[in-house]
Amino acid sequence: MTTGLQLRSLIRKDGELEVSLVETDFADPGPDQVLVKVEATPINPSDLGLLLGPADVATAKAGGSGKDVKVTAKVPAGALPFLAARLDQSMPVGNEGAGTVIKAGASDAAQALLGKTVSMIGGGMYAQYRLLKATDCQLLPAGTTAAEGASWFVNPLTALGMTETMKREGHKALVHTAAASNLGQMLNKICQEDGIGLVNVVRKPEQAKLLRGIGAKHVCDLSTPSFGNDLTQALVETGATIAFDAIGGGTLASNILTCMEIAINKSATQYSRYGSTVHKQVYIYGSLDTSPVQLIRNYGTAWGVGGWLLTPFLQKIGRAEQQRLRQRVVNSLKTTFASHYTRTVSLPEVLDLKHLSVYAKRATGEKFLINPNK
Amino acid sequence: MTTGLQLRSLIRKDGELEVSLVETDFADPGPDQVLVKVEATPINPSDLGLLLGPADVATAKAGGSGKDVKVTAKVPAGALPFLAARLDQSMPVGNEGAGTVIKAGASDAAQALLGKTVSMIGGGMYAQYRLLKATDCQLLPAGTTAAEGASWFVNPLTALGMTETMKREGHKALVHTAAASNLGQMLNKICQEDGIGLVNVVRKPEQAKLLRGIGAKHVCDLSTPSFGNDLTQALVETGATIAFDAIGGGTLASNILTCMEIAINKSATQYSRYGSTVHKQVYIYGSLDTSPVQLIRNYGTAWGVGGWLLTPFLQKIGRAEQQRLRQRVVNSLKTTFASHYTRTVSLPEVLDLKHLSVYAKRATGEKFLINPNK
Repeated sequence: MTTGLQLRSLIRKDGELEVSLVETDFADPGPDQVLVKVEATPINPSDLGLLLGPADVATAKAGGSGKDVKVTAKVPAGALPFLAARLDQSMPVGNEGAGTVIKAGASDAAQALLGKTVSMIGGGMYAQYRLLKATDCQLLPAGTTAAEGASWFVNPLTALGMTETMKREGHKALVHTAAASNLGQMLNKICQEDGIGLVNVVRKPEQAKLLRGIGAKHVCDLSTPSFGNDLTQALVETGATIAFDAIGGGTLASNILTCMEIAINKSATQYSRYGSTVHKQVYIYGSLDTSPVQLIRNYGTAWGVGGWLLTPFLQKIGRAEQQRLRQRVVNSLKTTFASHYTRTVSLPEVLDLKHLSVYAKRATGEKFLINPNK
Repeated sequence: MTTGLQLRSLIRKDGELEVSLVETDFADPGPDQVLVKVEATPINPSDLGLLLGPADVATAKAGGSGKDVKVTAKVPAGALPFLAARLDQSMPVGNEGAGTVIKAGASDAAQALLGKTVSMIGGGMYAQYRLLKATDCQLLPAGTTAAEGASWFVNPLTALGMTETMKREGHKALVHTAAASNLGQMLNKICQEDGIGLVNVVRKPEQAKLLRGIGAKHVCDLSTPSFGNDLTQALVETGATIAFDAIGGGTLASNILTCMEIAINKSATQYSRYGSTVHKQVYIYGSLDTSPVQLIRNYGTAWGVGGWLLTPFLQKIGRAEQQRLRQRVVNSLKTTFASHYTRTVSLPEVLDLKHLSVYAKRATGEKFLINPNK
């Protein structure tokens, strides 16, 4: 048995969120299992839903010190009915990570990993140790560090999921918002490799510059007065009729649909009273802006807006196709699928309010890596 | 050759809408064609998009009299880019209608219809005559009048399209808004016949009463304080996870998704950080409220909102299945698929501002029938 700290998130029936570190016993591996010492695990936007839930970060308070540190915050009463299934349960957090296999079960598959650096997926990564099936580990190529392999799953497969979804739903090019993010930069590299038209929507001139610097051809900056015209022109040039939006709130999704409709109508030869018959789709996969999505419907009836999430996409494509995508990622972890972090923190530092206030903002360009054994 | 009036809608490049009656020559039928004297054609919400476009009805002015009557109104400049393909073209209007075949081509199919009452689909019905293929006519059963057969296509097939879409997309019950409409009453009868769970959302107590009077089991009234609880309870009882919304603007679509999520979570046994994994769908098929759709995303990621339109649905299901649905309608025009009108008007009366101001409102319970040969 191995003992180590594990980060836990608890929302109580009375609406109090408590994030703490719990001294946890990790059993020795069964025949097909390995015990991994977690050395790198990122804080992704997709982790924050479980870590902080809908708690109001402005109400966060810290208590204790060292491994007894604790953060509490208030969850608005209106959000509680949606949380029924997790209330009063202490939940481990952290979707993906990487580390060293320190114990291995008797099976060949498990023994083959002993002492090796592996990437992992499956939750509970914000911990000093993680027990999991050998088949749920991905062996990293020699010379790849845990830090390089930590973000191997969520961002890379989400980016690949976007281009795959585009193809499967019959579109030929795509739009991506918050495009200067780690994910957005990956998506640019993928689209360049695969010859796919990509329209990048950013919010600041320096983000536009960054993307042009890595070879992005179509970059539209929301902060410029020509944004609408620029976007329409890029849509005409690429023929993009699907968008993946990380922002969510406000009118951006609607504006993209509007510009798509105008771009399509520029080449229309016959009037349709219901707008163009070309289906225009926006998938919202993030919530940088949690305010309501506002749809100003001036784009006919052939449109859809919906949530998009990696897990159901992976279930839909099946195991063989998943394996093909995973292998593509691992082959290019230092190039196409490289992640960049602004800060590496320990587990107690995750609960430091000065860090929490930064990563809770989900700001493009701010990305935290946790080293639970720092 | 036969001469008669045809209603036309024209939007000029400068943004002026003009609706007028044009003396039109209708050629004698070719071998496979028939000429129908149009005796009944409804004003459906789906006709208003072509008839009035996005013109501001408050600016409407009438001129001329008798068959020289004319209505003009202003189209907001922002809407013109979406109308490029129809600008400066005089468009005939009217999706569906019924009347008597007064001339027929030489083919057996055409001759068989001579003197008969038929229903029609295909546009240009707001006219005294309509020339079309015999195969585009549907022979009405003996004893069925043109008025009874006029609304045989748009509403009946839209209602059937909803239950068919529900089945094809894997849902087991459905929600319908503006449920006291002609269409909504039809949908109740269809669901009762087919044993499908239907949740009716209405905006007034008298509409709730009307629906309960025709046997509706689940009726939720937006004007009552218990609406949210009533809707959630009806969703629990029916298991409805798809909605068809005629209203469009505001927060109703979002509220339906929220109540679906709460209903699903009432029976959830495991917490999912991304909300329930059950896909929740709202299709917006009307625009009684043209203000923006506001989506307050507290229902996870397994959701979609989109436009829904009859024509692409019919294209998707193919000709044989279409034929099956059409036949079902014609068999029950006096019962399940009966329409009710508040007023029958002539063609010049369509252009009367006191009528226009009523039908342009798309109010539930107000439905106009045109008799172009009145």
